[in-house]
Amino acid sequence: MDESGELGNWPLTSNFQVLWGDLDAFNHVNHTAFVKWIETARVNYFNDCGLMGMFEREHKGPILASLSIDYREPVFFPDSIIIQTTITRMGNSSFDMAYRVSSASKDSNIVAEATAVGVMFDYRKQRATPIPDSVRSRIIDIESNRR
Amino acid sequence: MDESGELGNWPLTSNFQVLWGDLDAFNHVNHTAFVKWIETARVNYFNDCGLMGMFEREHKGPILASLSIDYREPVFFPDSIIIQTTITRMGNSSFDMAYRVSSASKDSNIVAEATAVGVMFDYRKQRATPIPDSVRSRIIDIESNRR
Amino acid sequence: MDESGELGNWPLTSNFQVLWGDLDAFNHVNHTAFVKWIETARVNYFNDCGLMGMFEREHKGPILASLSIDYREPVFFPDSIIIQTTITRMGNSSFDMAYRVSSASKDSNIVAEATAVGVMFDYRKQRATPIPDSVRSRIIDIESNRR
Amino acid sequence: MDESGELGNWPLTSNFQVLWGDLDAFNHVNHTAFVKWIETARVNYFNDCGLMGMFEREHKGPILASLSIDYREPVFFPDSIIIQTTITRMGNSSFDMAYRVSSASKDSNIVAEATAVGVMFDYRKQRATPIPDSVRSRIIDIESNRR
Repeated sequence: MDESGELGNWPLTSNFQVLWGDLDAFNHVNHTAFVKWIETARVNYFNDCGLMGMFEREHKGPILASLSIDYREPVFFPDSIIIQTTITRMGNSSFDMAYRVSSASKDSNIVAEATAVGVMFDYRKQRATPIPDSVRSRIIDIESNRR
Repeated sequence: MDESGELGNWPLTSNFQVLWGDLDAFNHVNHTAFVKWIETARVNYFNDCGLMGMFEREHKGPILASLSIDYREPVFFPDSIIIQTTITRMGNSSFDMAYRVSSASKDSNIVAEATAVGVMFDYRKQRATPIPDSVRSRIIDIESNRR
Repeated sequence: MDESGELGNWPLTSNFQVLWGDLDAFNHVNHTAFVKWIETARVNYFNDCGLMGMFEREHKGPILASLSIDYREPVFFPDSIIIQTTITRMGNSSFDMAYRVSSASKDSNIVAEATAVGVMFDYRKQRATPIPDSVRSRIIDIESNRR
Repeated sequence: MDESGELGNWPLTSNFQVLWGDLDAFNHVNHTAFVKWIETARVNYFNDCGLMGMFEREHKGPILASLSIDYREPVFFPDSIIIQTTITRMGNSSFDMAYRVSSASKDSNIVAEATAVGVMFDYRKQRATPIPDSVRSRIIDIESNRR
């Protein structure tokens, strides 16, 4: 099934507050803070589509295979951060996600963009496992705003 | 002047969101996350009373001399955290702050309490310096809700 | 049994490296980094005395009830940190630990001191539980350097 | 000048220790810890080639434009981490770096690989600025082990 037309619709938004301790010696928010916000945005999506709950029941769950971030603008304290998240591709066991990070104090301008590759993993067998159909259709629903 | 009656009124509230990465291997929010939230609550108060701005202009600013935290309840993800902050004592150059950390998902029950001792510091002379009168009266105003 | 004479002997030393990202906007190592090093020093002690292994087998383990830190000197990047750890009191289910944090670049001068109260906790019963005798005698051995 | 033959030689090694608090709820070292170690490996290289010192004197310094990480193996506590770093390309004002992250407890197997694009930035003019010749030749020396 070609699902490509139904993905990449940025259905999920997560909000974060800059902490003072996120600043580094250049007086910018350190780039690791972006990575930590993006991770929570990802987990929010996983909670929505049922991926997070499978770990408890079946010892299966998504693992992060790779992450790429482009940093466009520095962020300062105080500020509020908005992250939009979408799934752009689902393979058999792997999937691609994209993130747009924007800053409330900069008229919601994009300050960073990121992509990640996740893999559905069976922790007991210690190998990749197919994305379950239930999760697959739930993701299509989320991306189509049929929630 | 005896200011004790005018202090300790919990005038400032700061809000935080638990990040997924704040969890540790016990599946609880790690205790260092509390310390980082409390720090931002402190900086919020410093911004309000004019202490933060003095660093840029006069190279004076508050430093943290000590911190004590009592952990009462574990916190999980997701959750929202509320921190109330107050100054309970002002000496010549030192001051005491107190913090109440509560969890939105626990009916705002207190999950931790903390106290800190700060010292007004002159970074150029590398020694303690008196709390300026302007800051002192601003703190009284904040604690009296005369903002 | 009065164990007080056999405790407080600073038997364990842990070493840490300052990371560049530990610096904050004041160009000092942020005070939360100290808390994270102290935590690892504590876990190192727990591993040595058998407290950490009990979690896997018996769902019992130490929880942090309170932490107090006195910050004496700022720390910068790069630097190496040495933390000495000792248990100073064992009650029925609670115990006191102390930490000395020193900096290699400052001739091992103490830059911070801390104390913590831990409680032995039964996660299944969700309440405090006595420190097991095996752990208690192991701690006496560690403090007496009979390892 | 074609410098490509003289770059990419992995001249610099940095060592890190896993902290207990680096673990997340999956009992793995959280992926943000890798990002923080890689940052310190990068700063170590910048210190060596003179890029870090320019910030104090000339308000010029490197900024991180993008970062890509492939995660190959999970890391646990306790462990020691080794990061090898190299510069693989120098343009007019931008440059590429590569990182190999390996784990002491896994016979120094590579657990992650990363690349980053940095840009030499003039903080006063707020725009990219050429990599100075002195830094350029210092980098060639470092990569050729002529230190």
